[in-house]
Amino acid sequence: MFGVPNLLHESSPFDAGAVISITVFISLLCLCIIIGHLLEENRWANESITSLLLGLVSGAVVLLIRKGQNSRILEFDEELFFIYLLPPIIFNAGFQVKKKQFFKNFSTILSFGVLGTLISFCLISAGGLFLLKKIGLTQLSVNDYMALGAIFSATDSVCTLQVLNQDDTPLLYSVVFGEGVVNDATSIVLFNAVQSLDLSNLSAMTTLALLGTFLYLFFTSTVLGIFVGLLSAFIIKKLYIGRHSTDREIALMMLMAYLSYMIAELMDLSGILTVFFCGVVMSHYTWHNVSESSRITSKHAFATMSFISETFIFLYVGMDTLDIDKWKESNSSPGTYLAVSSTMLALVLIGRAAFIFPLANILNCVRSDDQKIDLSRQFIIWWAGLMRGAVTVALSYNGFSNSGEPISNERSLMISCTIIVVLFSTLLFGTVTKPLIKAILGGSRRVTSDATDIPSLEYLNIPFLETVEQNQNGDDDPQHQRGRFSLLMKYPTGAAHHIWRKFDDKFMRPVFGGRGFVTYEPASPTGAADPSHEH
Amino acid sequence: MFGVPNLLHESSPFDAGAVISITVFISLLCLCIIIGHLLEENRWANESITSLLLGLVSGAVVLLIRKGQNSRILEFDEELFFIYLLPPIIFNAGFQVKKKQFFKNFSTILSFGVLGTLISFCLISAGGLFLLKKIGLTQLSVNDYMALGAIFSATDSVCTLQVLNQDDTPLLYSVVFGEGVVNDATSIVLFNAVQSLDLSNLSAMTTLALLGTFLYLFFTSTVLGIFVGLLSAFIIKKLYIGRHSTDREIALMMLMAYLSYMIAELMDLSGILTVFFCGVVMSHYTWHNVSESSRITSKHAFATMSFISETFIFLYVGMDTLDIDKWKESNSSPGTYLAVSSTMLALVLIGRAAFIFPLANILNCVRSDDQKIDLSRQFIIWWAGLMRGAVTVALSYNGFSNSGEPISNERSLMISCTIIVVLFSTLLFGTVTKPLIKAILGGSRRVTSDATDIPSLEYLNIPFLETVEQNQNGDDDPQHQRGRFSLLMKYPTGAAHHIWRKFDDKFMRPVFGGRGFVTYEPASPTGAADPSHEH
Repeated sequence: MFGVPNLLHESSPFDAGAVISITVFISLLCLCIIIGHLLEENRWANESITSLLLGLVSGAVVLLIRKGQNSRILEFDEELFFIYLLPPIIFNAGFQVKKKQFFKNFSTILSFGVLGTLISFCLISAGGLFLLKKIGLTQLSVNDYMALGAIFSATDSVCTLQVLNQDDTPLLYSVVFGEGVVNDATSIVLFNAVQSLDLSNLSAMTTLALLGTFLYLFFTSTVLGIFVGLLSAFIIKKLYIGRHSTDREIALMMLMAYLSYMIAELMDLSGILTVFFCGVVMSHYTWHNVSESSRITSKHAFATMSFISETFIFLYVGMDTLDIDKWKESNSSPGTYLAVSSTMLALVLIGRAAFIFPLANILNCVRSDDQKIDLSRQFIIWWAGLMRGAVTVALSYNGFSNSGEPISNERSLMISCTIIVVLFSTLLFGTVTKPLIKAILGGSRRVTSDATDIPSLEYLNIPFLETVEQNQNGDDDPQHQRGRFSLLMKYPTGAAHHIWRKFDDKFMRPVFGGRGFVTYEPASPTGAADPSHEH
Repeated sequence: MFGVPNLLHESSPFDAGAVISITVFISLLCLCIIIGHLLEENRWANESITSLLLGLVSGAVVLLIRKGQNSRILEFDEELFFIYLLPPIIFNAGFQVKKKQFFKNFSTILSFGVLGTLISFCLISAGGLFLLKKIGLTQLSVNDYMALGAIFSATDSVCTLQVLNQDDTPLLYSVVFGEGVVNDATSIVLFNAVQSLDLSNLSAMTTLALLGTFLYLFFTSTVLGIFVGLLSAFIIKKLYIGRHSTDREIALMMLMAYLSYMIAELMDLSGILTVFFCGVVMSHYTWHNVSESSRITSKHAFATMSFISETFIFLYVGMDTLDIDKWKESNSSPGTYLAVSSTMLALVLIGRAAFIFPLANILNCVRSDDQKIDLSRQFIIWWAGLMRGAVTVALSYNGFSNSGEPISNERSLMISCTIIVVLFSTLLFGTVTKPLIKAILGGSRRVTSDATDIPSLEYLNIPFLETVEQNQNGDDDPQHQRGRFSLLMKYPTGAAHHIWRKFDDKFMRPVFGGRGFVTYEPASPTGAADPSHEH
């Protein structure tokens, strides 16, 4: 404009490439949000699919602009994914999860997430080893096939959140989503174990060690998450009495949640599990200790961050699909792609079916009649967990690309096929799931297990926790005690929940706050009798 | 625990160093927030100083742990600063600024920010060239001295926000802070101009080109910010009527604000100015178009992000101070450090005095009596703008470290001295400013210019904007018109504000929303008569 381009040229103090990438990404994110809003009423589409497709389209546009050279504007970066994008999503999931439902189905979630993932891992590894060799792949080792098993066992908890509705189908939501969180952790642990395992020495001892490691990781990660969550509740309760500062409260919650994830990673634990349980504890205690505006803000701010991260991930995966370099590197025919991808997809389908239906039926034996998972629900649980997402992509990059050195054709083929499976499963299963659930559950919704409530166990007094009340009521009648015992047997989850509630009111809330802690009177049972309690 | 360290070892899929750094930083941030809260009542301390000192202490601890090798756990990264930390701070400043005060003092802000910075730049450059050569520096070129001038002309708008209070001293706050924003932009433009200028050919033409570039940048950046802000208001108003989704609204606001910054950087404009004005427009229009919970959330979420960024920056600068490598590189005696740092500090003091007092007195001539800035206020404006902050550090790294190749002793000395000046000025001026303002303004607060309000100009009808009303009221009385004219002359800012308000109500609000747009009736003057309007 003034003929001094040399002055303008140097104006930006940082890399122009990074600026362009970020600008494009942010514009696409805005577009995703707007299109997602416009398609909200549409039963087929959701934000994940919109972002994936938009990513694909923009990848194609970039490819055209660069004349077929390269579609990437951002290298897929595991660090970006694991350090910045995943934690807010999982934390928010823990923060917003319906705790009652989640803990009610805890045994189901654990069996599906741990046992199920192990079954699926074995099946996919063995199937891959057997079938891919038939297709003609020769370069991959046994470790690679086991890595494949771990990679494809990781369901996508992000897309699940968008397809299932917590309010309409609380049972399905909590089972499928809860399983997804545990499953992510299991897959990552399995994947790392496989990467470092010496398979020439595979013995019973190694298997036992693997199991021990897993249990250790699971337990420690959970405890760490709970600890950090309680710490945040304690700090905010102690410090902020009467002097609330919304900015500080939210900053502290956000930073401590993130801290829990980073500490877990630092200690080589599962950050996903840790940050999930940190979210659960924060929503139960910390959230009630902050001011009203902090409550509104935190709820929405965490959801927004998670929402942006999710959209970003799908946009990213969609864009990565058309990365021409990767396709060239693998040097394979379209037939091979098709064969490998469909084999893997079939293995994913079978691997999931192989644990959902048997485990669900075994669990039904110990569940009471009204809590059984019927066949149509089993089908939906199976179906909704078929999507593969960003964790799969990230693990695949981690497993098959050696940073720096050029990678072999077949390893490159594996990465490409992973992306094809992720894309296909998200588009297909993501699109059909919502209408499918409506079709299957349409009329019968909320009639069966989804609506079960724990029966009132208010008179089920627990010794030690309620000595005062017990003595007052003279609750030593043997018949009453027998009734109490049979109730405990009939509703073990309900009883556990009741015991927890008493414990919570007596020991936890006075220290860590939580709903109604301000008006809490240590000797009064009102807290326990409040029907609006949800924990 | 299970004797399988090989399984645990590989569990983290990313660089352990990065994880440690982030963990330490997040822990320190949490500490800063807690300590900052505890010191809130203290009149000497504020969050900036706490973070700086905490950064210093932790730098020392790291130094001890590494046995004097290195205190850095994160390399000072301009990209991190300019792309991630600065935008939320400036955006939030624009979003929360009291628009009425800001625009009332717009002429003062512009003269201080542009003319003042130029004066300060010339003085510091010339003084540096003259004095530092006397100290014995020989390696620096004229360009380097001019860069020094630009670097040390950048006041720290972040610390200002914490020291001055928008409610207690609105005039001072808006002048000092507004000047800070304009000044940041001016310094960065000057710095880049100096970096690329060929000083052997310095002619009147070059100077004119520099001025032209500056005006072009200023104007274009502002327009871009306003445009993106209006676009966001328009999109949200059009799309979200009756179907509000808090997550999407906040995500869209956040992303579009950031987009404005990135587009400005991409077009080599001043991102700081753009994102500032984007924030101003968003708080005037967009914010009123979203749902109630989005309003609460956005207000606090933006403030929180800005708060975290600020704390992070000061922590960072504090930690960077004890970077032993940098001190070794410069290879200078403590005497040289002292001499150079105190020279620069003196130049900063003189450079600022050289424009605040003359310009303020010149401006007082055209201001009406009750709006004059008296000497005590001039002194505070001078004093509060003496702090140097992160922009100075970032520019200094940019100017004096050549990435890759080793840098000369004197260039390294310049970086160290910049950090000393930043540290010293923040600690000294930051600590003393709050008590100083109290001491100086203590009794007389809100008596003089700080409390001036624009007189009611409701009957000052403007043709074209108010043809309907005018005809109805028969407002053609010549005496009335003369009174109107003299009012316009007496309160030019007030008149401009009034005209803007009429224009806003007639043309802008119907399209872009804003306060009360839902009940807005195009032909009714109620919107303009509402006393709670603030714009």
